[in-house]
Amino acid sequence: MYGKRPDMTVHQVEPFNAEPPRAALAASTITPLDVFYCRNHGPVPEADPETWRLEVAGLVTTPLSLSLDDLRTRFPVATETATLQCAGNRRAGLVEVRDIPGEAPWGPTATATATWTGVRLADVLTAAGVSPSASDVEFLGVDVSDIADPPQEFGGSVPLRKAGMPEVLLAWAMNDEPLSPVHGAPLRVVVPGYIGARSVKWVRRIEVRDRPSANFFQASTYRLLPPDAEVTATPGEGVELGLVAVNSDVLRPDDGSSHPAGPVAVAGYAFAGGDRTVARVDVSTDGGSTWSQAELDEQVSPWAWRRWSITVDLPRGDTELLARAWDSSAALQPERPEHVWNPKGYVNNSWARLRLHGT
Amino acid sequence: MYGKRPDMTVHQVEPFNAEPPRAALAASTITPLDVFYCRNHGPVPEADPETWRLEVAGLVTTPLSLSLDDLRTRFPVATETATLQCAGNRRAGLVEVRDIPGEAPWGPTATATATWTGVRLADVLTAAGVSPSASDVEFLGVDVSDIADPPQEFGGSVPLRKAGMPEVLLAWAMNDEPLSPVHGAPLRVVVPGYIGARSVKWVRRIEVRDRPSANFFQASTYRLLPPDAEVTATPGEGVELGLVAVNSDVLRPDDGSSHPAGPVAVAGYAFAGGDRTVARVDVSTDGGSTWSQAELDEQVSPWAWRRWSITVDLPRGDTELLARAWDSSAALQPERPEHVWNPKGYVNNSWARLRLHGT
Repeated sequence: MYGKRPDMTVHQVEPFNAEPPRAALAASTITPLDVFYCRNHGPVPEADPETWRLEVAGLVTTPLSLSLDDLRTRFPVATETATLQCAGNRRAGLVEVRDIPGEAPWGPTATATATWTGVRLADVLTAAGVSPSASDVEFLGVDVSDIADPPQEFGGSVPLRKAGMPEVLLAWAMNDEPLSPVHGAPLRVVVPGYIGARSVKWVRRIEVRDRPSANFFQASTYRLLPPDAEVTATPGEGVELGLVAVNSDVLRPDDGSSHPAGPVAVAGYAFAGGDRTVARVDVSTDGGSTWSQAELDEQVSPWAWRRWSITVDLPRGDTELLARAWDSSAALQPERPEHVWNPKGYVNNSWARLRLHGT
Repeated sequence: MYGKRPDMTVHQVEPFNAEPPRAALAASTITPLDVFYCRNHGPVPEADPETWRLEVAGLVTTPLSLSLDDLRTRFPVATETATLQCAGNRRAGLVEVRDIPGEAPWGPTATATATWTGVRLADVLTAAGVSPSASDVEFLGVDVSDIADPPQEFGGSVPLRKAGMPEVLLAWAMNDEPLSPVHGAPLRVVVPGYIGARSVKWVRRIEVRDRPSANFFQASTYRLLPPDAEVTATPGEGVELGLVAVNSDVLRPDDGSSHPAGPVAVAGYAFAGGDRTVARVDVSTDGGSTWSQAELDEQVSPWAWRRWSITVDLPRGDTELLARAWDSSAALQPERPEHVWNPKGYVNNSWARLRLHGT
């Protein structure tokens, strides 16, 4: 479906929500298109690129209505390699602590890295002329979600300071291929370092505002509620998610797999959003008493994950392998999923835990 | 000494290193000058503001040599309220885990907030003309430290992207008073959101570079070493510190204090650096089984801590009060000091723990 590998874990067919096997994500720093996770909140729109217009409105001096040709010809083309990560990535680890009804139990592969090509949002905003009173930039897609109350287009905003940074793109290509419908064709936002929900697909309207978006998917969901909160659609409750906290997981070997006792090659990813990058990854096979530092792959871009690898000595019997990352602010992932459990199951960035069996 | 309260905890007289009692720091959002912690690496220089020059050199098209009058007259005056936090803040909690020889056992008050006035570094850099090959901006003071090997002026750098942000100041005033000698008179750098070490005092040279500073205090220290590393002065080992991870502590009541059982007013601070702010603070009196959310004071600036308060019900006998903060990336402080222990004792951002006795 939608050009994806047949072995994706499909959490939902409509809207289409799917993630790849760990091993598929482990294979490369830039994720192939057929492996890249899909997170949708409504049906995938069928858009005609010939008639597509992007409206730029709100607190601007010159509202714009731009065709794809306008974008390509009026602004310099820009390319960034960036990791996207769903706020629900690794929710399965929270579900093991306590059930999270109505939310998909995403594993650790609702994250992936692509090279995105388009124009810089900053250039488009400059052309529109941002008013001094502006503080936030909202993106609206065309995909109407009936998860929202009331049903509405998917949307969300980022602070103007972020919107004006050169890494934020309006993209029409992914890994040098035209965007596919499921990834937002003909045009999507890419906000590196922010939760995937802010990289709005099928973007048709940009609204410059003096406050954050009131869209359901920002004001009423994608929020960190305290553990004892009831899940309601009341806007403004809990902490608005946006920047991505440091996180990591193991991609190889698979959870629950058996191997001959002795050296086992372990590989994974670590990612930190915002102005941070991954600085160190530690692995333990003795419950965290001692840690070894993994080898970090090259940092291919300030906005990309770092893949890591290490060989561990697997004993006979059952072993829990732990992995934890530190970012460039010296922030460490919290130890246990119990510490970060929340009613909507977002941002499980507790230490990675993998069950291995040595034979 | 140096205009500080008589009840400061003086870790070292020369260089002067001192922090205030918890209760003194608790009294206000903007820290009075006599309460603000002091972290020095060499003797406090005696500088003549009349002859002071700031050199701007390196990868610039127009090297500058600026008097204080030049700064005041050539550039717009700017003011920011920002929290500074020493990378060694809360080291005492790490020392309880394992001794850290040769480093002061700072408590939780090596952090404070002031309103800084000066000019924007960005404006000065624009006047100098930054070369396209530049990536970092280094600051050098006049204070020669014999802690360094070889002895050298204290210095450090931040990425050019940060240096160009409007919140980074060259400051001559602190809380509307002229900078005092111990805080960097006549001119210091203020880099909001970064460890205090990057807010170089007595700054006399700014060098635009194509790599981070090679100064001892960036290349060889203020680095997060793995727990089993030996402490050496070899440049480049461990993780370079810079951005501040989310942290918090209790300021009132005092650690180890006794109170009648029943309601006790608890207050503290929480801080997150970089592009993050504090989003939530939780307090527990049952070892972390249940948590209550503290009331957060106003966010007075994106670069300032948030003070918090809550009333807890103190039982008779000994209670360990826990506090932990979440930042706007949904990052949570790690649970235990054992998790973050490192040989130089930096960045103890584990949960705050306060021993209270109910009578």
